[in-house]
Amino acid sequence: MEGKTYPEFSTRYPLLLRTFMKRPVSLYPNEIGVVYRNADTGQYQRFTWREWYQRTCRLANALQSSLDIKPGRAGESGDRVATMALNNHRHLELFYAAPCMGAVLHAIVPRLSLDHIVHTIEHSGDKVLFFDDLILPLVEMIYDRIKPIVEKFVYMSDGGGVPETKIEPIYDYEELLKGQSAEFDWPYLDEDTCASLCYTTATTGLPKGVMYTHRQLYLHALHLMAAMSWAADPAIPHLGDSAVPILNTPFCHANGWGMPHIYVYGACKVVLPGRFTPEGFCDLVQTEKVTSTTLVPTMLAMLVEYEDLKKYDLSSLVGIGVGGAALPLGLKTKAEQLIPGFSAISGYGMTETGPAVVSAFTKRYMRNWSKEELDKVRVKTGLPIAGVEVDVFDENGRPVPRDNETIGEIVLRGPWIMEEYYKDPERTAQVWKDDGWFHTGDVAKVDEEGYLTIVDRITDVIRSGAEMVPTVLLENLTATADCVLEATYVGVPDPKWGERPMAVIKLVPGATECEDDIYKFLEAEGVEKGRLTKWMLPDFIALTDEIPKTSVGKYDKITIKKELEKFLSKAKKMREA
Amino acid sequence: MEGKTYPEFSTRYPLLLRTFMKRPVSLYPNEIGVVYRNADTGQYQRFTWREWYQRTCRLANALQSSLDIKPGRAGESGDRVATMALNNHRHLELFYAAPCMGAVLHAIVPRLSLDHIVHTIEHSGDKVLFFDDLILPLVEMIYDRIKPIVEKFVYMSDGGGVPETKIEPIYDYEELLKGQSAEFDWPYLDEDTCASLCYTTATTGLPKGVMYTHRQLYLHALHLMAAMSWAADPAIPHLGDSAVPILNTPFCHANGWGMPHIYVYGACKVVLPGRFTPEGFCDLVQTEKVTSTTLVPTMLAMLVEYEDLKKYDLSSLVGIGVGGAALPLGLKTKAEQLIPGFSAISGYGMTETGPAVVSAFTKRYMRNWSKEELDKVRVKTGLPIAGVEVDVFDENGRPVPRDNETIGEIVLRGPWIMEEYYKDPERTAQVWKDDGWFHTGDVAKVDEEGYLTIVDRITDVIRSGAEMVPTVLLENLTATADCVLEATYVGVPDPKWGERPMAVIKLVPGATECEDDIYKFLEAEGVEKGRLTKWMLPDFIALTDEIPKTSVGKYDKITIKKELEKFLSKAKKMREA
Repeated sequence: MEGKTYPEFSTRYPLLLRTFMKRPVSLYPNEIGVVYRNADTGQYQRFTWREWYQRTCRLANALQSSLDIKPGRAGESGDRVATMALNNHRHLELFYAAPCMGAVLHAIVPRLSLDHIVHTIEHSGDKVLFFDDLILPLVEMIYDRIKPIVEKFVYMSDGGGVPETKIEPIYDYEELLKGQSAEFDWPYLDEDTCASLCYTTATTGLPKGVMYTHRQLYLHALHLMAAMSWAADPAIPHLGDSAVPILNTPFCHANGWGMPHIYVYGACKVVLPGRFTPEGFCDLVQTEKVTSTTLVPTMLAMLVEYEDLKKYDLSSLVGIGVGGAALPLGLKTKAEQLIPGFSAISGYGMTETGPAVVSAFTKRYMRNWSKEELDKVRVKTGLPIAGVEVDVFDENGRPVPRDNETIGEIVLRGPWIMEEYYKDPERTAQVWKDDGWFHTGDVAKVDEEGYLTIVDRITDVIRSGAEMVPTVLLENLTATADCVLEATYVGVPDPKWGERPMAVIKLVPGATECEDDIYKFLEAEGVEKGRLTKWMLPDFIALTDEIPKTSVGKYDKITIKKELEKFLSKAKKMREA
Repeated sequence: MEGKTYPEFSTRYPLLLRTFMKRPVSLYPNEIGVVYRNADTGQYQRFTWREWYQRTCRLANALQSSLDIKPGRAGESGDRVATMALNNHRHLELFYAAPCMGAVLHAIVPRLSLDHIVHTIEHSGDKVLFFDDLILPLVEMIYDRIKPIVEKFVYMSDGGGVPETKIEPIYDYEELLKGQSAEFDWPYLDEDTCASLCYTTATTGLPKGVMYTHRQLYLHALHLMAAMSWAADPAIPHLGDSAVPILNTPFCHANGWGMPHIYVYGACKVVLPGRFTPEGFCDLVQTEKVTSTTLVPTMLAMLVEYEDLKKYDLSSLVGIGVGGAALPLGLKTKAEQLIPGFSAISGYGMTETGPAVVSAFTKRYMRNWSKEELDKVRVKTGLPIAGVEVDVFDENGRPVPRDNETIGEIVLRGPWIMEEYYKDPERTAQVWKDDGWFHTGDVAKVDEEGYLTIVDRITDVIRSGAEMVPTVLLENLTATADCVLEATYVGVPDPKWGERPMAVIKLVPGATECEDDIYKFLEAEGVEKGRLTKWMLPDFIALTDEIPKTSVGKYDKITIKKELEKFLSKAKKMREA
């Protein structure tokens, strides 16, 4: 008789999030694993890894028995479990309990428009919705529209209990867990089982659903760890024994950039701020001796503006990764002046790409370069992360030369690149085309070292005559002017050139009317130093209290263009084109 | 029309060694990537990553066109390409060219007996054999027996050319490469395609073949990197920008423990010693500023005995991983005294397990422990490496309690555990049994922290009455005695107890007749300190110039038992049982 070899526990052993989830409780059952600070009350909650694991088991039991959530299998997704929640321990429990029992976690971005939130719930077909107390008013507003879809609601709060509300049936999260067993028989799912569903922030059209399998999330995290461990750059939020990460990236943004996976796998003490506030961030860094974090530029700008920043001991902080939007050199420089030991590099990714695919690691032989030289590298978009193929194609589908000048579209393929938009073959075909590459819609150039620099979204390009205005370069340079906090550029219709650039600028606190200074700065630092050509300089500069941003903190050029007349009316005309 | 989504470049993007191979040339094309020192002539050869990559492409072209090697696919292995070679650049080229073109690399252990070498070649069905000049006499000895199998031979030497020999057809490696293109169109294989075939060193019966797929090798390396990057222990051969590894573990031993994969992926400068010699090791460490390495205890013992050790600057060395056999605390202590900055931890694995599955990482809260306390942890066999499941089962297939006392068999499952012995269902059934766990045949206990300590091979156990003698504990303790360099234990037939232990000992250089000192040491450090019970002490102590070892450096108890009378005749009887 031939021996049975169990290939499913060998060559086909599945890559599942359960492996990540189980590691900390086996290594550090009695150590504090999860720290959560309520951003409004300032109160802390701390859980050992055993406590967190047991709560996660209870939650899985509750999903199965009380909420009737059914697991899926490869090729057929399990029930969708939606969340509208901040970065707290309950959300982290949901992040593992739902996918590891075979369901799909759909973390909704609460900042989407109401119509878009309703759309994602309908499109996803969410069977149950877990939401934080803070989100209650929002859920009440959309309740009548989503009740045909969502069968059950779970209310989550630090105090426990459920409020008076029209929403029903509604469960209290803590009550739901109480009666459940602290053990759960986690299944060995097929690794191609769907694990999470994220919707893109749509700048045009309705949000698109991106479904990730366990395998994709596992490999994304594992490769990102490898990339971080090989990184030359001391600025990389480091792994290793002493890492204490604070997870600022909202869990609802592209799986929280994989951080909830990486740091649970690493069995680090995971610090959760609820929602990001400068005060909460500083308090947590000081109290928990946080070493590393990820931020979007908006958060960094909030920190830089925070009056009490210097009252806190932030000396434990050694690494900050910035993503979600380009990191302006000016903002980076200001942060370095204010936060001792601060050092940050940028990266690039999309919901569709895991998200991590490119990061501005420096190379080994740059070790002895001056800080100024290194900074020039670090604000480039970066190099491909190990394990993913990244290229920049010209209009004929050929790689552009590495001359740091010729631009093309960033294309990708690799183990954690989205396969298709959920139930949307048309828009899937637009990005995958027919050449075996995922087309990002982002325009970049490549230097001879292989570093990509993103120039623009294809849809955001400003065309002046036959030329494309390098808006990201303009934005970065403009943000280094003393009086500028944030800067973006949009195209303004022009009878002669088609379009001409307008700068939209938020000044640093206290600064006033400095359009001419900014223009002179661009002439001196840009044109005279050969970084810009004169025709690239803005025809208009508009000062504004707030630059419109998308829910993930990117400059919202769609909104600016919609309100173009408003911005133009307060803009100063700088030159005749 | 529905859009094509290319799942093979997304959810099914294959995990292939080509990803590892291509990384260094894309990051560091012009940096020295591979350094090889000929252990006999002392001559160095250096290659940039572009040179190494181009040579590897040329080799793949030669395999395909000149040697007619055919690729395989999932479920059907490609042609087998055998090597009998040291750790040099050519072997590293073969390590990638053969599997990445779809063939199977079979790295033969040249220290096997001739019969076993012939058996592995016949059993594997090697179509071509690449061998080093040093191996020529050996290949000539077996030529008549293997020529019905092996169709072509390739001779590899630093000087080039082929010698006068009866072997034919024979090709010169460098000539073979010369005519070939420096580019190769590497296929996107199925990740379940076979990549390498390793034979176990059989202590009983014929060597068994272990076939690894690309996916298994990829995931082994990636998880090992993750484990190393999370490790608390400064003694771990570190990754990161500044790592300069020397690859001492022979490539023919379980894929060189994955080091040729990890460090090429890391785009480190890879230092290759040909064969291990203390002089070559010291010269390479000093010249190349080597930071880390892996060794078997025998190599470490050779270093400790090397007279000129202190003439070299070894200060760059920060991490040494020891495996292949248990690391005696005594040997470790001696190495620490001789090599400044030396620090080592042990690990555990088998050819069947990738090999890495267990490593003696310390835990975070041990950070401030004394060196003595830490050393006690580091000589334990260790904790499971992230990504693999490890347990210790009693005779009824239940996990043993974590009391550091109850012993059982180590069982495993995970993504890089062998699926089946190549063409050997019978012995496959012996290890996989019917419970979904791979049974290692190694006996261990588990402490409350989860650390495993290997007690013995099931087949090496010494049974005295109803009790098992803890031979590994005895070996480790004995090796800490001042006059002892190496120590092992075997059972001697005894009319009353069935078996009684005999120590077989190699003394440190200069020491003589100290059996009584050793015995007293065991009484004082073992029995009086509660580590041993009196009945465990050896009845006999045999001093010997060399302890027989297997080809991978483990104590060869089979040979000792075969020659038991010889050892008994020079043994001193220490006690009446």
